Amino acid sequence: MTTYRVTLAYDGTDFAGWQAQAAGARTVQGTVEEALARLGGGERVAVAGAGRTDAGVHALGQVASFALAREWAPSDLARALNAVLPDDVRAIAAALAPDAFHARRQATGKLYRYVLDTGPVPSPLRRRCAGHVPWTLDPSAMTEAAAVFVGRHDFASLASTGSSVKTTVRTVTRSELRAGEGETPPGGAIWVYEVEADGFLRKMVRSIVGALVEAGRGAWSADRLRAALAARDRRAWPAPIEARGLTLVRVDYAAAGAAPRDRVAG
Amino acid sequence: MTTYRVTLAYDGTDFAGWQAQAAGARTVQGTVEEALARLGGGERVAVAGAGRTDAGVHALGQVASFALAREWAPSDLARALNAVLPDDVRAIAAALAPDAFHARRQATGKLYRYVLDTGPVPSPLRRRCAGHVPWTLDPSAMTEAAAVFVGRHDFASLASTGSSVKTTVRTVTRSELRAGEGETPPGGAIWVYEVEADGFLRKMVRSIVGALVEAGRGAWSADRLRAALAARDRRAWPAPIEARGLTLVRVDYAAAGAAPRDRVAG
Repeated sequence: MTTYRVTLAYDGTDFAGWQAQAAGARTVQGTVEEALARLGGGERVAVAGAGRTDAGVHALGQVASFALAREWAPSDLARALNAVLPDDVRAIAAALAPDAFHARRQATGKLYRYVLDTGPVPSPLRRRCAGHVPWTLDPSAMTEAAAVFVGRHDFASLASTGSSVKTTVRTVTRSELRAGEGETPPGGAIWVYEVEADGFLRKMVRSIVGALVEAGRGAWSADRLRAALAARDRRAWPAPIEARGLTLVRVDYAAAGAAPRDRVAG
Repeated sequence: MTTYRVTLAYDGTDFAGWQAQAAGARTVQGTVEEALARLGGGERVAVAGAGRTDAGVHALGQVASFALAREWAPSDLARALNAVLPDDVRAIAAALAPDAFHARRQATGKLYRYVLDTGPVPSPLRRRCAGHVPWTLDPSAMTEAAAVFVGRHDFASLASTGSSVKTTVRTVTRSELRAGEGETPPGGAIWVYEVEADGFLRKMVRSIVGALVEAGRGAWSADRLRAALAARDRRAWPAPIEARGLTLVRVDYAAAGAAPRDRVAG
């Protein structure tokens, strides 16, 4: 068996998230496993993803790992995958990986991006890839709020209920808001929020952005957010924002896990 | 009868263009006329659009004009339209207009934007709103080529065959390329081209961008483009690029046609 590491981009709109489900919902993992089965003459392959993105969440740089009986040149494997995958998911890079490589367990960090459309009417051209709130938001209040999350914190206040993670402590190394390019007519701003951490709890980014919106509309101060974060109580936190504005941009690995990438055409 | 001017944004992906067709294809014009019929208890309304965008072409600022028996406060009309329109088309502004106002005939200029994804693999997140070529393009060659179109020219070389326009002379006031925001993994650049003119022939912008791509990959020089433009021969021109990267951003009117806009919520 040969272990591969494949970088995936997808439009999450028409997927019920990453993780394969019993009920036959269309998932990214299931779609990739099906594509690999087609390439391998029915071989059943278990694919691990670095981030188990929720329904509607997109990826520019999701990382998947799996082992195949057949040995492929990595660029051939990516091309073959793209020939059988639907056009809302693409293999954008492929590489050989050590046998022990596991895309999720060995990830050391991730970068997520959230795009927020604040026009009075949701722009039809952004409706798949941006969340929408019809309010004028104060960027300096949002910037101040974004800084609350930087550092090592117990994010229990932002964790989805019923989650089974061992610890809710994560270290956020970057949490930044900037103005996005382009307009959302008539006159609404586009905001882009990026956050890097050593790991994320389920709905953590959407809960952060929900809090930034509350700060931007003047309902929550940075101090109130700081106190609610320290309270480690999910009920004390603003509601998470909708999934469609969220993209998993990049997954990081320590040097040992980072086999050289193979650029792929077609 | 009261005449209205409504600004529309739409994702053109799932429309067979602007113009209503006999065969029952889904068009933007037909969709808006149907929405107005629903609001008016079956009243048949003829809607004129400033730009007859082709299948797959998007709009941020298409302008439509029509007359209704009922008198609406413009913002109420836009809200009512948005309540019955599908979510890939939105009324983003509405205003009362003089009886003689016609969105197409009185337009004095338009701005179109083309977004080009040059990653080795088309990014799934941009596949609805960006054209794709898998080549590294030279921005300085494309910038030089873009300048060829500025000024008053006979654009017969770029006109669709079988078009019935009276003249193929148009004046281009801006023709500019810039780097777009964000990445298309792995490593491909995003290019954004914007062009303003007093009017456009059918497929004119897509023919210009087709030429910019040929210039960017070194196949056509700016001089060759200049000569081919002067030749006024459609067969001498590079093929138009695909529709999905194109957006009608803005339509201009002389001051008389430009009734004050009414901003709209939800």
